[in-house]
Parts: sequence; C-alpha cells; structure tokens
Amino acid sequence: MKKTKLVVIGGDAAGMSAASKVRREQPDFEIIVFEKSEYTSYSACGIPYFISGKVEELDELIVRSPTQFIEKYNIQAKTLHEVLEVDTDQNRILVCNRKDKTQFWESYDALLIATGGKAFCPEVKNHTANGIFGIQTLTSGSKVDTFLKKHQPKSAVIIGGGYIGLEMAEALILRGMKVTIVDRAPEVMSTLDPDMGKKVHEALENLGVEIFNSESLDHFEEKDGLVSAVVTDKQTIKTNLVILGMGTAPNTSFLINSNIELSEKKAIKVNDKQQTNVKNVWSAGDCAETLHLVSNKPFYIALGTVANKTGLVAGTNIAGGDLKFPGVVATAVCKICVHEIARTGLLEKECVDLKIDFVSTIIKSKTRAHYYPEAKDIFVKLIAEKGTGKLLGGQIIGEEGAAKRIDVLATALTYKLTLQNIIDLDLSYAPPFSPVWDPVQTAARKLIGMI
Amino acid sequence: MKKTKLVVIGGDAAGMSAASKVRREQPDFEIIVFEKSEYTSYSACGIPYFISGKVEELDELIVRSPTQFIEKYNIQAKTLHEVLEVDTDQNRILVCNRKDKTQFWESYDALLIATGGKAFCPEVKNHTANGIFGIQTLTSGSKVDTFLKKHQPKSAVIIGGGYIGLEMAEALILRGMKVTIVDRAPEVMSTLDPDMGKKVHEALENLGVEIFNSESLDHFEEKDGLVSAVVTDKQTIKTNLVILGMGTAPNTSFLINSNIELSEKKAIKVNDKQQTNVKNVWSAGDCAETLHLVSNKPFYIALGTVANKTGLVAGTNIAGGDLKFPGVVATAVCKICVHEIARTGLLEKECVDLKIDFVSTIIKSKTRAHYYPEAKDIFVKLIAEKGTGKLLGGQIIGEEGAAKRIDVLATALTYKLTLQNIIDLDLSYAPPFSPVWDPVQTAARKLIGMI
Repeated sequence: MKKTKLVVIGGDAAGMSAASKVRREQPDFEIIVFEKSEYTSYSACGIPYFISGKVEELDELIVRSPTQFIEKYNIQAKTLHEVLEVDTDQNRILVCNRKDKTQFWESYDALLIATGGKAFCPEVKNHTANGIFGIQTLTSGSKVDTFLKKHQPKSAVIIGGGYIGLEMAEALILRGMKVTIVDRAPEVMSTLDPDMGKKVHEALENLGVEIFNSESLDHFEEKDGLVSAVVTDKQTIKTNLVILGMGTAPNTSFLINSNIELSEKKAIKVNDKQQTNVKNVWSAGDCAETLHLVSNKPFYIALGTVANKTGLVAGTNIAGGDLKFPGVVATAVCKICVHEIARTGLLEKECVDLKIDFVSTIIKSKTRAHYYPEAKDIFVKLIAEKGTGKLLGGQIIGEEGAAKRIDVLATALTYKLTLQNIIDLDLSYAPPFSPVWDPVQTAARKLIGMI
Repeated sequence: MKKTKLVVIGGDAAGMSAASKVRREQPDFEIIVFEKSEYTSYSACGIPYFISGKVEELDELIVRSPTQFIEKYNIQAKTLHEVLEVDTDQNRILVCNRKDKTQFWESYDALLIATGGKAFCPEVKNHTANGIFGIQTLTSGSKVDTFLKKHQPKSAVIIGGGYIGLEMAEALILRGMKVTIVDRAPEVMSTLDPDMGKKVHEALENLGVEIFNSESLDHFEEKDGLVSAVVTDKQTIKTNLVILGMGTAPNTSFLINSNIELSEKKAIKVNDKQQTNVKNVWSAGDCAETLHLVSNKPFYIALGTVANKTGLVAGTNIAGGDLKFPGVVATAVCKICVHEIARTGLLEKECVDLKIDFVSTIIKSKTRAHYYPEAKDIFVKLIAEKGTGKLLGGQIIGEEGAAKRIDVLATALTYKLTLQNIIDLDLSYAPPFSPVWDPVQTAARKLIGMI
C-alpha cells in the first residue's frame, strides 16, 4: 500500500507542531517539510533578546534542527526550499531549491500551509537599502546582529510602536543606542486603548526613547547603499539603522493564483479544524485566520502560541483525529525594560465598531501588598458590557508581576464571565504576590458600580 | 423612627468590610464594632514580614484605625472589648470592657459575627511559657518582635509545616536565626500532595532549615518563666523561641451556649448570603464555614481574601441588598525566600475520600522561555477526573513568576473546565513571561494523554 504523503510548507512553530503530531499518531506517513529559510522550528519571538545580548547565541533560539527532525522523527525538513505555487487540482506544489535555483513539482495527499507572516514594509523609495530590517525570521535576527557589529550605529529609528517595535527598542537601549520611534498612530501600542497607550508612552520616554506619533513614513534616504535617514511626512531623521515594526502580514502571496480562499487581509481562511476551503489542504499559524471569541468574528493575529496550538490541531486532524481550535481572545504581553504591558479581548473602539454598549475604568493598585517592600504600581483597565456586566476586554500596565494577571481575564473572556464572577474568583493571595483583592478584582469592583 | 442598629463582633477584615459596606448603603444605620484587641482593620498576613524586618513599622499593616472609622465612616469601633456571650432570644450580646473589666449587655437589630480565627495550641505542659507564640493577631506580631529584641534568641522551633510555619521560617532566617520545623505530618505543607511537599522540603533544607517530620509535640520545658525546649515524641530540642503553626481554629468558643449552629470544626454555619441559622445573625471571615466548589461540601479555610469577600457579601445583605458568596476552590500561595508555592482545588487524598476516580501528573518547565536568562524552574501538578478530564486540583512550586499562575487553575476549577479547555485557553506569551505553552498548559497536555 502506498504511504500517505503529508507535505508541509513552512518549518517553524505551526508546521513543525503539526508534522510532529502527525508523526506521533501515524508512524507510516511520509512527511516532507519545505522551509524557505535555513532554519527550522525556532523562536522568532526570541530575536529581540538575541539582539539585546540577553541570549548569547542565535542557536539557543532553535528548538530542533533538520537533522534532529529526520533522525528523531523521520520528518524530512528541506530548508532553503521555497514554494512558489500550489496546484490544488493536481494535488501538487511547485518548489524552488534556493541553493541551486532548480524547480520541481512535489505531489501530496495532504497539504499543510504554515508559511507564517512577514514584517510589513511599504514599497517606498529606498526601502531595500542596507540597514532596514523587518524582524520576523531567524535569518533577519542574524542579519541585524551582523549589521550592528559591522556598522556600530549609534542610533536607530523604529517604525511602528507595537510589540516588535517596543521589544526592539528595549534590545537597542540595552545595546547602548539612542532609539527613536516613529508611529503613524496618535499613540503607541495601538493594541491598547489610547488612555493606556499614553502610560506606555510615558514609560518609554522615561527610558529615554524619543517618540513621534501621528507621523508617517514617506521614504528612506540612502548613501553608499546604506540607509542614511528616515523621511516622514513631518521631518527627516538621520540614522543608519531602521527597524520595521509596522505589523505582520500573512505570507500568502504564492497563493494568489490558487483557489485557496483568503481573507481581506490575505490570511488563509480555515474552519475550526484548520481545514481550508480545499479538501486535504490545511493551514495553521501566522498565515491563517482564526476566530475572535469575544466579537465572534474572523480575526488575524500573528502569535507563537496560536501557531503552536493551531499546528497541533491541524496535525491531529490530518492524522485522522478530531480536534477543534476554538479561537482566541487576542491576549498578548510585552516587556520593555521594567515595564510590563498586557491586553486581552476588545478595545473600546472595537466595542464601538461592534455597536456594543460598554463601560470602562482604569484603577491603580499594587503588584503586592501595599506594605510589602517590592510592591510596584499596576494599572488595570477593564471594559464590560453595560447592563449585563459581561467582561469585554482587559489591559494591564505595570512593573514586575503585573502582566501575567491578564491570563485570568483571558480565561474570564473565554467563558463569558461577568464582573461579579471575577470578584467572586478565589484568586491567590499572600503579601508577596498580591494585595488581598487582586488588582483585576479591584478593577471589577470599581466597574461593577458603573454598569 | 428608631435607627436600625448593626452590631459587629470583630474589627478586622470581614467585620470592617461588612461595616463599611453597610455604611455606604445605609447612611442612617447605627454601627458599633467590638474588637477584642487594640487594633482594627489590619493585615494579619503581613506579620511575618514585620518580623523579618521587610516591613519596618507594625503600623504599616494597619489599614484603618478606630479614629478613622468614626471620623470617615461614622462607625464606632470599640477596641479592647471582648464579647463573652450572644443571647439571640433577646437580641443582645454580653460585652467585657478589657480596660476596666466592666461588663454590659448591648442590644442589636442585626448582628455580624466576624471574630476570626486563632492559632491552634494544644494545652500541653508549659504551653503558657513566655517565648511560645501563635501568629494570628497584630498583637501577637508585636509580642514576637518585642521578645526577639529583648531576648535575642539564636534559634527557633516552628511547630507545624504549613503556610504560617513557612512564612515565619523565612522571617526568622532573614533575622539570622537557626530554624527547626517540627511537623507531625509525614511531609511539610500538607495542603500539597506529598510528592509536591517533598520538593518544598528539599527547598527548605537548601535554605538551612532543619525539619523533623512525623514527629509530634509532647510538651515544652520552661526555665525561669521562659520556654527552654520543645519535647517531641522522639527528642528534646533546646530553644528559647517557639512559633505555633499548627493551624487556625475559629474563634467561636463564646458561642458554645448560644443556639447559633457550628460545624464539627466549630466554625459558624452560614448559607450563601452569610446568614447563620438565627434570623438577623450573620457571620463572615475566619470564624465561618464556607462551601468548597470542587467537592461541593462545607469547608473551613482561614484566609484574608475569603474574609474580605464574605464580609462584603454579609454587609451587602445586612444593608438590604441581595448578594451571594458562591464559595472557594481553596486557593493559597506562600513564599519562602526564592521559593513560591501555590495550590488550588482537591488533593489526591481528598479525591480518594470523595471516591473520585482521578489521574495526576507533575511536569517540570520554566517560568520564562527556556533561552531567556532569568528563566527559573517551575513544577506543576495537575489532578483531573478520569474519563471526563475535568480539572480537580493544581499545585505549583517554583521560583519567581511561578505561583500566580495558580489563578488560571482556580478560575478553571470554578468553571469546571477540562484539560482540553485549559490547553485551548489564550494565555499570554512573550519570552520574558512564559514558554510558548504556559507551564499549566504543558501539564494539561501531558495529563490529557492519561485520562
């Protein structure tokens, strides 16, 4: 009997989670993975910590190499192989070997598309100049590090004030550089409401970061092949290093001519079993769309957790199992120096767009009992539905011990808890860990008086 | 019209939460609080940190003084007033003024009993010797500090290896003392399963704490009025300081002759509105029983969080509102030096007693991404129902960043989540905060293979 052949496009979190799961369940499947870069199964989220020097070797970010995959799991992971086209009519893909530039068609019985995302870069003048980097793949991390060592720039401009922008700001501060953030939004961290974003803004300024909001990239200036300045709609900022933190876009351009359905944002549409609209074609990770459990609408988010989970679900189902990925509540955390930032659920403006009548409040509390010496400030914002008190979203900013509290709110959102339910939760308390009312409960207590 | 008169017995967390809530809702009520000690509204949980010197002044543990209560809230808080008897037939209580030893009857329209708990002390030979302390009230904290300054003992014996024992062990280590724990249980921290207790045991030994398990207190030796040794069923340990950490018992002995119903453990029985069996008599805090939401059975737990919450519920209802306290899942955390310990839900032996068929596992993970420099070890134990995979309990031991993760498990228990539900949760991830699979999810992933 012919072996079932699984072909996976993309050898990072989602693809390799799926491939490994299929191997555990189906020892007889043939499994081939094509990966465009030279690395498999790595932590892209760790790149800023390699740039900062906290992680000494790039190899520490690699979970498993192609050699380990073949030897331990009998999975053929072919790196430096880029897939150019998917032909679902004939169940085959066109692959380019980037080493020798040869091309070949590879057939499949099941196909998993897990090509991830890429840093968005507008095609403005000189956008290909040396010194301009998106942070998405391990290769990009390696390039930035090499560039820093060679050119030793004194300053950097980060375009975009989101997670990657902030994490890279920390990394470059720790490397002793002057950091400027240019952000077209009126406030940094647009995944927070502006009132909470303002607190992040203040924290960044206290770290010495220069921030220009409501300012858009126009183009770059280049000198001797090297970027020499960022030109915005308002000014010219001289720099030899630019980091693009303008968001992540799904890596799906090779699917444009296929009949695999994409969303408006060009993410692959999947059902809750990670199946695309085409039989035997699956997708997982940063290239696929998911469901937002609070808005109950399709949603695009590029996150390592979601990539691992959707990869596991896809792998289970490809192997003949039956597992669903319910969706996300859009939880995310970020750390910049001592500052911790977390969010989950809907923002105020999303509630407005969804025509949900809501109330919100921000409270200031402490991460530990007020008298405990290491107690730090923590701000918690909660948004709840007017009338019912059902939680809609939560945002946290604070120092050590603040951010991980978002997980209780993420769980509460998933199970449609109300503010009273949150107040009633039997959360842990001892003076080194929390005030007697956990800050998330203090926020719920205040907000419940407003519903 | 005669004002409604609320009398509260006990001026700490539960009593004062209730009194303050009643005042906010009912400006016209007369509110009198009788408190046996000289303090109101303080954090008893903070005492070990005052003893250790982390908190410099005892006053920092006081939230509000009697003067503040009368001036800001029009609540009369009479300290050094002990209630000796409750006469529910005539709606009155017998009060002793401890300053002048006079006694008087005080009538009430509504009565809240919030007398808290007391450190359990067996009435063995010389148990009243100077140098033997239970840690329950602010007064006891003050006495230990005074004793330490006066006698400067070099060593201490802690009887009992639970939360208070461990927190006091830390405090005395930080004060430079040699600490010995005598515990009649076969392993320390009997609120954990023995396999997790063993990890705490090892951590304590690494801190230099000497531990004798399966060893019972027989009596104390006394010399010149001062304790001179602890005599167990196995040995005599010389010491001039003994800390009692043998558990907390409800302060209800003054109710023995009343018709207020007590549990087997002498805790006051209440319904979910904090009402006792007697009309217009309410109870809240460490003197009252509550409901365990996992076993669905009455449960006694002495915790500041529960005291605050049940006080708020009692106050709301006394003021004419309608609020229920659903119960607890028995969440608790504790820190000893760098070690964090947390638990929630049922232990294995409780599952056995309840005849629940269960599976359990312990996993070792990291508090942050494995490559992040400050990543520390974390052990997570999960217990789930066989067949359904419903979570029954969780225990966590680890270093910085470990313990607060218990809150997700506490929330999961409250809403009867399964291991698959936990795996699906959209918990926060970034390398400084967690591995891509949060350790609680890693434990759920392992255990789900065993149900």
